Amino acid sequence: MTVARTVELEGHIIDSGTMGHCMGVVMDMGGEFEVEEFEVGRHKHAETYCRMTVMADTEEDLRAILHELNQQGATVADPRDATLHEAPEDGVVPVDFYSTTNHPTYVRVDGEWIEVADPEMDCALVVERDDADEPRVSTKVLNAVEEGDLVVTGETGIRVEPPERPRDGGGSFGFMQGGVSSERPSESLIEEIAEEMREVRENDGNVLAVCGPAIVHAGGRDALADLVGAGYVDAISAGNGFAVHDLERDLYGTSLGVDTENLEHPRDGHKHHIYTISEIARLGGIEEAVEKGVVDEGVMYECVANDVPFVLAGSIRDDGPLPDTITDSIEAQNAIREQAHEADLVLMLSTLLHSVAVGNCLPSTTKTVCVDINPATVTQLLDRGSAQAIGMVTDIGTFIPMLRDELLE
Amino acid sequence: MTVARTVELEGHIIDSGTMGHCMGVVMDMGGEFEVEEFEVGRHKHAETYCRMTVMADTEEDLRAILHELNQQGATVADPRDATLHEAPEDGVVPVDFYSTTNHPTYVRVDGEWIEVADPEMDCALVVERDDADEPRVSTKVLNAVEEGDLVVTGETGIRVEPPERPRDGGGSFGFMQGGVSSERPSESLIEEIAEEMREVRENDGNVLAVCGPAIVHAGGRDALADLVGAGYVDAISAGNGFAVHDLERDLYGTSLGVDTENLEHPRDGHKHHIYTISEIARLGGIEEAVEKGVVDEGVMYECVANDVPFVLAGSIRDDGPLPDTITDSIEAQNAIREQAHEADLVLMLSTLLHSVAVGNCLPSTTKTVCVDINPATVTQLLDRGSAQAIGMVTDIGTFIPMLRDELLE
Amino acid sequence: MTVARTVELEGHIIDSGTMGHCMGVVMDMGGEFEVEEFEVGRHKHAETYCRMTVMADTEEDLRAILHELNQQGATVADPRDATLHEAPEDGVVPVDFYSTTNHPTYVRVDGEWIEVADPEMDCALVVERDDADEPRVSTKVLNAVEEGDLVVTGETGIRVEPPERPRDGGGSFGFMQGGVSSERPSESLIEEIAEEMREVRENDGNVLAVCGPAIVHAGGRDALADLVGAGYVDAISAGNGFAVHDLERDLYGTSLGVDTENLEHPRDGHKHHIYTISEIARLGGIEEAVEKGVVDEGVMYECVANDVPFVLAGSIRDDGPLPDTITDSIEAQNAIREQAHEADLVLMLSTLLHSVAVGNCLPSTTKTVCVDINPATVTQLLDRGSAQAIGMVTDIGTFIPMLRDELLE
Amino acid sequence: MTVARTVELEGHIIDSGTMGHCMGVVMDMGGEFEVEEFEVGRHKHAETYCRMTVMADTEEDLRAILHELNQQGATVADPRDATLHEAPEDGVVPVDFYSTTNHPTYVRVDGEWIEVADPEMDCALVVERDDADEPRVSTKVLNAVEEGDLVVTGETGIRVEPPERPRDGGGSFGFMQGGVSSERPSESLIEEIAEEMREVRENDGNVLAVCGPAIVHAGGRDALADLVGAGYVDAISAGNGFAVHDLERDLYGTSLGVDTENLEHPRDGHKHHIYTISEIARLGGIEEAVEKGVVDEGVMYECVANDVPFVLAGSIRDDGPLPDTITDSIEAQNAIREQAHEADLVLMLSTLLHSVAVGNCLPSTTKTVCVDINPATVTQLLDRGSAQAIGMVTDIGTFIPMLRDELLE
Repeated sequence: MTVARTVELEGHIIDSGTMGHCMGVVMDMGGEFEVEEFEVGRHKHAETYCRMTVMADTEEDLRAILHELNQQGATVADPRDATLHEAPEDGVVPVDFYSTTNHPTYVRVDGEWIEVADPEMDCALVVERDDADEPRVSTKVLNAVEEGDLVVTGETGIRVEPPERPRDGGGSFGFMQGGVSSERPSESLIEEIAEEMREVRENDGNVLAVCGPAIVHAGGRDALADLVGAGYVDAISAGNGFAVHDLERDLYGTSLGVDTENLEHPRDGHKHHIYTISEIARLGGIEEAVEKGVVDEGVMYECVANDVPFVLAGSIRDDGPLPDTITDSIEAQNAIREQAHEADLVLMLSTLLHSVAVGNCLPSTTKTVCVDINPATVTQLLDRGSAQAIGMVTDIGTFIPMLRDELLE
Repeated sequence: MTVARTVELEGHIIDSGTMGHCMGVVMDMGGEFEVEEFEVGRHKHAETYCRMTVMADTEEDLRAILHELNQQGATVADPRDATLHEAPEDGVVPVDFYSTTNHPTYVRVDGEWIEVADPEMDCALVVERDDADEPRVSTKVLNAVEEGDLVVTGETGIRVEPPERPRDGGGSFGFMQGGVSSERPSESLIEEIAEEMREVRENDGNVLAVCGPAIVHAGGRDALADLVGAGYVDAISAGNGFAVHDLERDLYGTSLGVDTENLEHPRDGHKHHIYTISEIARLGGIEEAVEKGVVDEGVMYECVANDVPFVLAGSIRDDGPLPDTITDSIEAQNAIREQAHEADLVLMLSTLLHSVAVGNCLPSTTKTVCVDINPATVTQLLDRGSAQAIGMVTDIGTFIPMLRDELLE
Repeated sequence: MTVARTVELEGHIIDSGTMGHCMGVVMDMGGEFEVEEFEVGRHKHAETYCRMTVMADTEEDLRAILHELNQQGATVADPRDATLHEAPEDGVVPVDFYSTTNHPTYVRVDGEWIEVADPEMDCALVVERDDADEPRVSTKVLNAVEEGDLVVTGETGIRVEPPERPRDGGGSFGFMQGGVSSERPSESLIEEIAEEMREVRENDGNVLAVCGPAIVHAGGRDALADLVGAGYVDAISAGNGFAVHDLERDLYGTSLGVDTENLEHPRDGHKHHIYTISEIARLGGIEEAVEKGVVDEGVMYECVANDVPFVLAGSIRDDGPLPDTITDSIEAQNAIREQAHEADLVLMLSTLLHSVAVGNCLPSTTKTVCVDINPATVTQLLDRGSAQAIGMVTDIGTFIPMLRDELLE
Repeated sequence: MTVARTVELEGHIIDSGTMGHCMGVVMDMGGEFEVEEFEVGRHKHAETYCRMTVMADTEEDLRAILHELNQQGATVADPRDATLHEAPEDGVVPVDFYSTTNHPTYVRVDGEWIEVADPEMDCALVVERDDADEPRVSTKVLNAVEEGDLVVTGETGIRVEPPERPRDGGGSFGFMQGGVSSERPSESLIEEIAEEMREVRENDGNVLAVCGPAIVHAGGRDALADLVGAGYVDAISAGNGFAVHDLERDLYGTSLGVDTENLEHPRDGHKHHIYTISEIARLGGIEEAVEKGVVDEGVMYECVANDVPFVLAGSIRDDGPLPDTITDSIEAQNAIREQAHEADLVLMLSTLLHSVAVGNCLPSTTKTVCVDINPATVTQLLDRGSAQAIGMVTDIGTFIPMLRDELLE
């Protein structure tokens, strides 16, 4: 052990697991630690403070350890400004760039700690300096990095605040629960989700619903339309397929050719799917179809009628697509990013692809609810790391109607 | 091709797939066929008749082919009595014994076609002759075969009637649908299941509910108790775990220690599970616990209060078990077999083990509904071959409350 | 029943299920049928012929029935030319357009039956007439339809040839097997897949491998690179993620930061992922990175070194993306379509999204092998309807190495 | 907060998560804590010591908190003897009995700390006193509790030692990893499992293989037989089904009628299954069948030939069963318990039911490897809480052959 650096941790670091993780990280990565000072938080509301020296065999090992400790919330003790390097080209980051977590983050520039706008994981941190104002630090995904951008490198001058175990229990939104149980009472959970939605609405918050086509097949579409109409959903993020199924239901009473009321299968139904796209294309788009009275119910209708914005992101498995669908994936990501940053509560409803895309852009402080019939999907989405998340393995075709009844009846 | 035999098929054998299957079987197994006579059913209600000669290289190959054709509904043309051999020992079948399907089956004894009582798959057929009466033919599982039993061997003198595509469509109960779709509207399916239950009840039929512990965890237990109380369930087949969870809910308000109302987790809850078993053991059993007023609500309570019989079959993963649990698997199978034979409609609710055990004993003519959150479970249960089955991939914690509302409100 | 039309079927229509399906379709859709003539195929190689009149209550019902019968292989008896209508606008199909299956299809134009080029499902059929040559009929997806295109409508003058049960058994490639069993011996299946690949290679056929990132995580990447290098793979279809993981493995020895040799997790590994994209972007693309010697092993390296073409299709969950990734979904679909049309054997390796995209473009005559650890994925892919498909629920990290050993050792 | 008690914790309690869990437990359960003394372990090998007072509103709340803290490794500060009460009846525990964890546990009797023999979760602790010897404390499942047994109640005088994060990293056997990733390189993991098996064998340890029937279907049976024959497996725990499939493979070359070499399906195969049971029954059992030369290869054969003991536990879905199968579930549990207590390494191979049964009896110190194609099964088994466990989502039909090659070639 030839190189060493001192780091500090502060907060509810024992029960939130931060302290234990940091010790584990050092040992797992072949380092050693020496606790210099340790002031335990003696009761529930008292914070703990720790200063410890971390040692490693090589400077490279030490840096790897420090990077990881930093992401867990430890900061290098001696406060210096963050190191900045210019991006050599568009879409290219400097060597040793700092790759972000999705936690609230602060960067020290010109002796001041600046809060990073819109924290998002796996991004670069870019510092902008104007003459008059305070410097600004924001996250940039790789494709948005421009030549000459001042990118943060190394670990110094960066402070991350991982979520802490809430002092009040936190309700149904579990603290950092990695897994999910299908063995929890569904009705009670739905009540708690409804309660949360009511609260967000009362506080003029923003509920983003990420919607998969299974909502329409499984029979949850009318209930979702009711919720949009009643103002419980402030934005929709979906794919071409969801919108087409929803519109087909309105135009032909079917979804992929299955009549969702009486289960009868008009066998030539798949043509309805293509016709729907063709018809909306002819009219110029969803908004035009609503305006001309061709579409007069359903989720997309309620969005247009109630000025609820929607993003339809394209994919290589799409039929059509609709004129409203954004076929370029970078452009679609940017639209999704904007939705994600505005959301206070995200409902991920039976779609892995779109939920991952939204989840990639979310800070860890945004509450999320993941609903899917497939436990692997729920687990994968929760693993992306919201500090406050409910995972529910259930049937979207019974979930949304019960949620609607809870909120509207 | 040196050996040959002539078989006959009759009925709606084209659209039910029988004819195609039989041709496929012969080709797949290396034989040849020659259609001697073919009288197509010219319209919906007309039956088709086919007589064809099947050829194979060896007598052994031919027998293998005939065995399979027989199970598909083809009968050897020249009507002779079935061949009978005595079982050499208890639990031992004669060589070349006939292994049953779960379809209605007839055996030719003394020149008469006798219907097999209680068709069940993978059994031996045993013929009993009294002096006065007509001979009786019944199915026997291996462990019930006794030395000297007259067991049917070979393929002659046996007629199987596989299910035919119903002429009236058959409603939601699909004809021989191997797979299951999670993409069907849940609310509509629940309405159809409720309708079926109403009908069975009006006809004094028998509804058997096969229940897994997830019913209690997921919050469907009170709704199920309501259905038992209202007479919509005529028998319960379950394991020790289901009963203990149901009783624990009554005694302690928890299920495996989780309060199913408010989701709070009294951390010492698992003791409740053991206490529940201990307490019921002390009282002498579930019936005694109800009589003494210790248990006064829930599924098991409603069973005792309404004389709804239940079978609790033991398993190696059980805690306890309860005094009511049948720990011997053969004895438990026999109890389950009796329930299965009496049932007109079987609801398989979130339990693979018990549903397989019940399904093993069912004739293909019994209607079944399989509900599970895991599509693989639903597929596996439907594959066991009820002619009329609904598979539903949904959340038991929302399914049972919605079914209850549909039936009782 | 006031309207009627006569249809014909011919071929191995009994054991292939066609005849039964057609009767079922008529009954399910509320029609009646009257078999006029029926000539049974008396032995294995003899074809069956059926002419039957189909009746319905309304012309609309009849047309719906005929559309479905047509897709099953029945043709309207009286041979007339197909009806053609001009597409009213770009991306808009005429009312009552014919929506394709993925089976070989023939269209009657000017009294001649023309084979449809590149059959693909859910497309429009477009007829092109030059002065000199025979008319051409091809499939067009909705977004490729141009104003004025002559699009086939209705059901007359169209003949579909659904796959027939092969007379020789068909080997491991099952005939129309909807489901998939995880209960088949894995080693034997791998041997049969290897045998098929050997055969395709000997016949200068084209093997398309559709690759998911799990190949790299699970440790199958080196074996796949060996197969590409040895000429057993003729084209790669994948996403940005697969390529980045493969390249990261080469540049940093990790995949998403996990060292796939010794399982050690260099904790700052996720930076590697972004660095890899950044570095390839700096060099200008994958080919440039290989040429400059920066990338010198792995799947993408072998593709460049051996002139094996690859398509990387973008998605909204991508990091980066790489300069080689096609971010527009319509453009990406077109590139995938070309790959699909050239393939003789498609290996779908642990990716649902890309396999669905490829599968959407495949004719039913292309052999496919679907390998995934998730049975639902395998089932979903097989349901898309290749006539000859092997579904295998296994671990891609053991499958590819065993396949490599089988082919190269 | 009117009642209080002081508890102590000692060891690597920060990085093992114990300290954080205990604080979380107190807060979650409505209590308060006051840290009285805290001596942090300043470096890797130094232990931490904490003494804290826990407060609650009622004595009942406090007891619930203390029960949970105790199970996490905290001990009531003031050392007193454990409280003992007599069991009132057979199978009935005294009120407030102590329900065990699966961690090493010590009970204070007559002023001495006695180590509990065979720790196992959800049991009662029973103290036996002889005149001469030291008292003995052992675990008893409910059905083994006898009237008059001295059962430990309450929380005083009990010390639990939950697993600590190993100081040396612990290799592939993760520390308390709740989840499982299918995204780890399969070949490398198999090498590490092989390494572990080699080590256990060199130390004359005991490897218990828990075997599901999928081993035979998927084609892993011959490889497993080789491992038994070569002495890498010291005991087999399975069900009737596994043994019958293995024996059928020997007697008829099929498994459930499918030829596992060439994939051909002798259609009358299911009779083989029943015949196999019938034939073994006729001979008197598996050992007799081996002795008489009827069974001469396979897993069961190698067991008999190499004196590897096996337990076949019955279930309600069994055919037959074989004479060797233990049909009573309590008796079967007892046999499994003995196997579990002797094992140093447990391989859970594609069976949920039997793995849960074995896992229920294991102390948390036994290393386990869980292999299944279904990630939910692996997760569920790992959740049962071995301190050192490898979960692997893979195909048993490729896993066992690769493991065999690794160990025997």
